[in-house]
Amino acid sequence: MTDTARAMEMRAFGEPLEMVEYPLPQLRRGEVLARVVAAGVCGSDVHIWRGHDPRTPTPIILGHEAIGRVERIGGDKADINGELLAPGDLIGWDRGVVCGECFFCIVKKQPYLCPNRKVYGISISSQDPPHLKGGYATHMVLDTRTKVLKLPEGTDPEVLVSASCSGATAAHAVEQCDICQGDTVVIVGAGSLGLFALAFVLNRGATRVVAVDVEDSRLELAAEFGATATLHATQTSPEHRLKVVNELTHGRGADFVIDCSGYAPAIADGIRMCRRGGTYTMPGIAVPVGETPVRFYEDVSIRNLIVKGVWVSDTGHFRQAVEVVLSNRYPFDRLVSRTFHLEDANDALGATERREVLKAVIKPSEQ
Amino acid sequence: MTDTARAMEMRAFGEPLEMVEYPLPQLRRGEVLARVVAAGVCGSDVHIWRGHDPRTPTPIILGHEAIGRVERIGGDKADINGELLAPGDLIGWDRGVVCGECFFCIVKKQPYLCPNRKVYGISISSQDPPHLKGGYATHMVLDTRTKVLKLPEGTDPEVLVSASCSGATAAHAVEQCDICQGDTVVIVGAGSLGLFALAFVLNRGATRVVAVDVEDSRLELAAEFGATATLHATQTSPEHRLKVVNELTHGRGADFVIDCSGYAPAIADGIRMCRRGGTYTMPGIAVPVGETPVRFYEDVSIRNLIVKGVWVSDTGHFRQAVEVVLSNRYPFDRLVSRTFHLEDANDALGATERREVLKAVIKPSEQ
Amino acid sequence: MTDTARAMEMRAFGEPLEMVEYPLPQLRRGEVLARVVAAGVCGSDVHIWRGHDPRTPTPIILGHEAIGRVERIGGDKADINGELLAPGDLIGWDRGVVCGECFFCIVKKQPYLCPNRKVYGISISSQDPPHLKGGYATHMVLDTRTKVLKLPEGTDPEVLVSASCSGATAAHAVEQCDICQGDTVVIVGAGSLGLFALAFVLNRGATRVVAVDVEDSRLELAAEFGATATLHATQTSPEHRLKVVNELTHGRGADFVIDCSGYAPAIADGIRMCRRGGTYTMPGIAVPVGETPVRFYEDVSIRNLIVKGVWVSDTGHFRQAVEVVLSNRYPFDRLVSRTFHLEDANDALGATERREVLKAVIKPSEQ
Amino acid sequence: MTDTARAMEMRAFGEPLEMVEYPLPQLRRGEVLARVVAAGVCGSDVHIWRGHDPRTPTPIILGHEAIGRVERIGGDKADINGELLAPGDLIGWDRGVVCGECFFCIVKKQPYLCPNRKVYGISISSQDPPHLKGGYATHMVLDTRTKVLKLPEGTDPEVLVSASCSGATAAHAVEQCDICQGDTVVIVGAGSLGLFALAFVLNRGATRVVAVDVEDSRLELAAEFGATATLHATQTSPEHRLKVVNELTHGRGADFVIDCSGYAPAIADGIRMCRRGGTYTMPGIAVPVGETPVRFYEDVSIRNLIVKGVWVSDTGHFRQAVEVVLSNRYPFDRLVSRTFHLEDANDALGATERREVLKAVIKPSEQ
Repeated sequence: MTDTARAMEMRAFGEPLEMVEYPLPQLRRGEVLARVVAAGVCGSDVHIWRGHDPRTPTPIILGHEAIGRVERIGGDKADINGELLAPGDLIGWDRGVVCGECFFCIVKKQPYLCPNRKVYGISISSQDPPHLKGGYATHMVLDTRTKVLKLPEGTDPEVLVSASCSGATAAHAVEQCDICQGDTVVIVGAGSLGLFALAFVLNRGATRVVAVDVEDSRLELAAEFGATATLHATQTSPEHRLKVVNELTHGRGADFVIDCSGYAPAIADGIRMCRRGGTYTMPGIAVPVGETPVRFYEDVSIRNLIVKGVWVSDTGHFRQAVEVVLSNRYPFDRLVSRTFHLEDANDALGATERREVLKAVIKPSEQ
Repeated sequence: MTDTARAMEMRAFGEPLEMVEYPLPQLRRGEVLARVVAAGVCGSDVHIWRGHDPRTPTPIILGHEAIGRVERIGGDKADINGELLAPGDLIGWDRGVVCGECFFCIVKKQPYLCPNRKVYGISISSQDPPHLKGGYATHMVLDTRTKVLKLPEGTDPEVLVSASCSGATAAHAVEQCDICQGDTVVIVGAGSLGLFALAFVLNRGATRVVAVDVEDSRLELAAEFGATATLHATQTSPEHRLKVVNELTHGRGADFVIDCSGYAPAIADGIRMCRRGGTYTMPGIAVPVGETPVRFYEDVSIRNLIVKGVWVSDTGHFRQAVEVVLSNRYPFDRLVSRTFHLEDANDALGATERREVLKAVIKPSEQ
Repeated sequence: MTDTARAMEMRAFGEPLEMVEYPLPQLRRGEVLARVVAAGVCGSDVHIWRGHDPRTPTPIILGHEAIGRVERIGGDKADINGELLAPGDLIGWDRGVVCGECFFCIVKKQPYLCPNRKVYGISISSQDPPHLKGGYATHMVLDTRTKVLKLPEGTDPEVLVSASCSGATAAHAVEQCDICQGDTVVIVGAGSLGLFALAFVLNRGATRVVAVDVEDSRLELAAEFGATATLHATQTSPEHRLKVVNELTHGRGADFVIDCSGYAPAIADGIRMCRRGGTYTMPGIAVPVGETPVRFYEDVSIRNLIVKGVWVSDTGHFRQAVEVVLSNRYPFDRLVSRTFHLEDANDALGATERREVLKAVIKPSEQ
Repeated sequence: MTDTARAMEMRAFGEPLEMVEYPLPQLRRGEVLARVVAAGVCGSDVHIWRGHDPRTPTPIILGHEAIGRVERIGGDKADINGELLAPGDLIGWDRGVVCGECFFCIVKKQPYLCPNRKVYGISISSQDPPHLKGGYATHMVLDTRTKVLKLPEGTDPEVLVSASCSGATAAHAVEQCDICQGDTVVIVGAGSLGLFALAFVLNRGATRVVAVDVEDSRLELAAEFGATATLHATQTSPEHRLKVVNELTHGRGADFVIDCSGYAPAIADGIRMCRRGGTYTMPGIAVPVGETPVRFYEDVSIRNLIVKGVWVSDTGHFRQAVEVVLSNRYPFDRLVSRTFHLEDANDALGATERREVLKAVIKPSEQ
């Protein structure tokens, strides 16, 4: 047992992360010190590193997707199932920490909109003690208000890291879709977010799911997850894609289109693939994409269309994501394409930026 | 009792309606011959007459908002409450006739999206017998599948005509808004549609309702209906309106914005008046309005916004509109600003086009 | 091609069904003559035959679960997807025929509650022409208002018969349960109804499903469908079952308990297996079960419990049932334990009454 | 300004409350010291005093409905609208304090089911410092996790006390009823809970509301609130009441029946007044009522009935109750029938037990 933690810290946007050491702190009541056993490299980590996310201060330890083992606890603390935590427990947690007291947290029960929400690895600086607020580190200190979920022993932490972010966001998106057994869904973008969305819609009773992406490997994985049809986004035309969807739906169009790509030109096509009375939702839009022209009469009004923004997620969504992984109905282990040592975090970021990997995972410490 | 009906028929778009006579037909099983006692002139009648609605054939008898008295019935027919109709009964009916057999009618229970939907006075020509398919006439022949609602004796038919169209559409729009006691709603456009929406949102528990319009007389009426604040659309700036809404909502913005104006430039402002997690809906968009640029990240995604199109309405919505009028909680009698004889239907259309009236009503026959 | 149909008709309750012949009729507009290729023997057929169902007249041709092939059509008729029917098409249909005009059909969109609902094989006598209104026959004449669904060629009709009744009812029950990914569900009764419910709750994201039954063979089949745990209803105590459920749910109890057994003494136990805030629903109660004492304070009020009756189903539910079978995620082919010739319908009834079979299917004509 | 508080404390069940003094404490971060300006005497206070509520310890200061003015704050604290509290502010608060960390608070968003929920004046003893945890006192100390709502200056605190308990519970009950414009509702019991429920259902669009009670004065008040019909519970028969409801609903029965009486024999009648497909809910059952026999087939199953327990309420419900009072649509000021000095708290309890008052309010300090 050591008394210091090591972390790859970002001192300035776009500069290589640097290894730093911080002392392991005394814990306040309700805090948890976790040893990080796996930390996902999210596509948005690249955006953050490049300075595109206005929420991010410097210095910061990146990494908002992490799985850890309890090292120490400040007094007693229970997980969201009421199970008391003990040293050695394998745990995940909601990456966002909310105030639990505001209009959004309490009255509207939309904590993902809490104006006081802070996110590990995204919006909490490493400047002040206890410093360890990101997953690219051997240890993290979890705030008192962090919602923790104890995981069953034997679970592979690498596979679960995505549940914290893309899994939870996909859960949120699909929760907004009132899918009925037999519905048809189009998922645009078959990365981690899209594959989670695919699993969730199948688990809501969607019978026909069409996946669209620009990479064959992702489309193949989508098929393994259970997509009924896969369509290459650049090797097919919008007209062809619409035709495929219409053939599956007696000419009506998809009941739901879920955009997980965040690619602005896909919006108009996506909207047009919805049937009258359908829903278009866009969990993939996580950074500004400029203006998109919408023909409100033709595309929205006469089609009684519902368009829904999806912003981040809450603890319930995180739990749903963990549950869908643990259900063993889908090959989530196929998401992780490469693991990295902590000191190689810059390589992990680079591989993610160059899209060489579907999901890179950093393993700061032994499980 | 006569054996012919008179009607003001539109032979060509933009030409004056002409008085014609048609024989009163033999009825088939389930058909109803109604004597029209009041026919509303809807704002969209002007659009239809000008040829802007692609659904409309010629020749046609306009008038999709009508209240009548049963003259004859083809066999037995019950209203939607199971009450058998009898000659002399005062009745209203769903202006749209749907097939009752398709995916939208039966599986998704969204009959307003039925591809076989026909609308009296909008999409059924007067070419073929029984001809009498619009409200600008002394009589109408209601199809077997028409959903009829018997009205209590003593009800003023003039006041109820709007329930058929703007009332039902407003019911549909508000039904899509999950309003909670204490919510704040902005209603853009305080004509017939907007005033119905105002009544409905108050009847869903909205506590603060802001009405926006370009005419003082409509804003005054909105205040009488119960609007908390009224804002002139051209004499105030978007910034001022946003400030007013924010002051009412602790800086959050409106829980719901309902656009009843159909005025394209109002869309972006309307969306911005919504709070994070709010809903923007647009029952007012009934004719093409071109393209509107939307900043999906800023306006929709990070705000978890819901945008909903609202297309026409169904029988349940029509009933809701009748119920809200009959509840006597709102001064709906104030909507009708002028009545016309049947032969003056062209004047009624003209007064509506020149916005001289809030609601013109044609009275083809004595009540 | 023949011009008569043969049917096993029930002349009096409890008496053996007798083979009769009826002429194939001229069809009215919208009617369909179907050759029955498979007719399920529902558990309730035994109740009906014994005279326990007050809706049933005599004489009658039993059989409300049937799959057929189109023989002739009265004019043009489309299925609920808008596909025009043609002779030879393999079809299923909603066993209930509703009026499409009443408060329940039109205003509340709960057609299963239509007071004019008639059910093939249950409440339509064979007394009057066209006689052929039940599935224990070579042919059936489907009323104009019957909602038909064209089935993909190659589908096994035997497997689909249950979709008409227990499948549709299970769909209705599960639709009333707002299941979330990760929820725990107890299903009491693992016959056809319970197995469909099991498939549906898994397809809504339930992660832990406990099946309870009195027969090992059914529990084994439940496990094959995906039940997490199976409990024998007489070889375990209520306390043990509650303990098992609590162990799966951190001591909270099940999110949902769905009673598919119709066994009155199971109600109180079922309610107690629900967690606070859970839902108890009872699609299995299809005949009177007397009075059950409920402790409203302890069992319902302080637990914020929701108790839901489930009465029959509608066309949308039937479609969901077909879709879940066709999804090939569950071994529905295992439901059919024995097939019978039409003339052996009495044997099929007997085997069902003696619980020798999970599902008996009569095959009146070649596919 | 004083440095001690006075309170009427219950030392033993059924014994007269006694005046005690406690020092005003130092506040911890987030605590609020409130001067109580009005404290409601709830019907359940009598039950608590008689020892019927298993949650209640002794000694205790009763009073879970209170309105106060901020005297001191431990650091900065904002209300649920994000408004910073300041000394002198008029405030109300959620009477229940929940943990904000458990499955019910966080995952299911049903904080009213939080197993750690504590209620001022009901389940928090005055044994330990800071003692002042009930409303029958000049001051209260509000826990850090208490959700506070700042009230507009000029509001009458007497009128608002009921919002904390019966108002919030009624909000919860009505939130569980998906009322549609034009629906018919029966409210059994027209005390404070029933009158709030009446206001809420009218504000959800109910058009016909039938109130049932045993006291004429309450029925008169119900009529003033807007009840369409009032029925005396002992001077009319169940058959007569059913007839009245059926006459209002074309023979169908009420869409919703809300039992606010907690009177066990009313349950079966209430269920029978529901239409097929209706909902029966019972916020009035707050103490054990023994067993009630239910005919599940006839009363629940074939009627597709929904029965819902309603247990207490959460902060959002409390806010709804305040909003409905402040909307000035209903004569809530008529609820308060008598005010008492703090030292006369025993008289207030007695008058409530003898049903001499609709609502007694204790005024411990000047506003």
